[in-house]
Amino acid sequence: MVTTTTQEFAGPNEAYAQAYGDNGALAIPPARKLAIVTCMDARVDPAAALGLKLGDAHVIRNAGGVAADSIRSLVISQRLLGTREIALFHHTDCGMLTFSSDQLRGIVLKESGGVDVGDALAAVGSFHEFGDVEAAVKADVAFLKAHPLVLKETVVTGWVHQVETGKVRRIV
Amino acid sequence: MVTTTTQEFAGPNEAYAQAYGDNGALAIPPARKLAIVTCMDARVDPAAALGLKLGDAHVIRNAGGVAADSIRSLVISQRLLGTREIALFHHTDCGMLTFSSDQLRGIVLKESGGVDVGDALAAVGSFHEFGDVEAAVKADVAFLKAHPLVLKETVVTGWVHQVETGKVRRIV
Repeated sequence: MVTTTTQEFAGPNEAYAQAYGDNGALAIPPARKLAIVTCMDARVDPAAALGLKLGDAHVIRNAGGVAADSIRSLVISQRLLGTREIALFHHTDCGMLTFSSDQLRGIVLKESGGVDVGDALAAVGSFHEFGDVEAAVKADVAFLKAHPLVLKETVVTGWVHQVETGKVRRIV
Repeated sequence: MVTTTTQEFAGPNEAYAQAYGDNGALAIPPARKLAIVTCMDARVDPAAALGLKLGDAHVIRNAGGVAADSIRSLVISQRLLGTREIALFHHTDCGMLTFSSDQLRGIVLKESGGVDVGDALAAVGSFHEFGDVEAAVKADVAFLKAHPLVLKETVVTGWVHQVETGKVRRIV
């Protein structure tokens, strides 16, 4: 069933705003000079799982927690807002393990209903699926360390978030 | 000061895992068939601000909460994991209001230290800055509603998150 977000956000947000306290005075630059990259997965709550307080860290999330899809955001995070550390997370039981870009393009083409989706699919390019979570973490950390737009002095760590237990484990 | 995330995540994550309860049994598809698109800003905590429970919604975050930078993730969210509603948030006091793509490219070029950043900057393209938060929300909602890769039956709403108060307000 499709939800009606307007009503469902209202109650919790009113309570959140009433307990907001001094948070309204927080500055734009993240206090811990930290950027998190992680998956959009509904079972991942980075603030809760990592003990991030409001104002601590940038949190970049996309399908998979894919580094290649975070570069625009990381440049803004580092060059304009002063972050100097990146913690990249992938997680167990990730949807990115379940398909190939070719399969997904096939699904989109089949469901297109006559709309021309060719140019839009070409603009997306790879859907950045992966076959092994730990290997993907290592590859993404290496990608960030070698990327010409990521500052050389950046501390980059790679992690797996276990959605079965809530535990995080550093890989690299 | 650059933090050492390994130590700082450990304590909070242990407490999180101990209180994880039945969350390990949550399914991959978001229970509310909802995808949130919002900014990476450190002062935004979507789960807390909107009352999202673990497993409820995909959360896509990038610099600005920019729709154009969320398409790959939204295709995976909709076609493979069943979401049918998108709530897009921008927020007050956003870093995206403070620069132009040309200025940021200039900063990167100046700080490049002899590394060739031209191809990497070209690959990023626009940094997707904006000049007015509400107008940007409206434009992004229109962009998603018209996008050939977003399912036609999608409910798309647009919101502003006030970082001064914690309150969210629906715009469109």
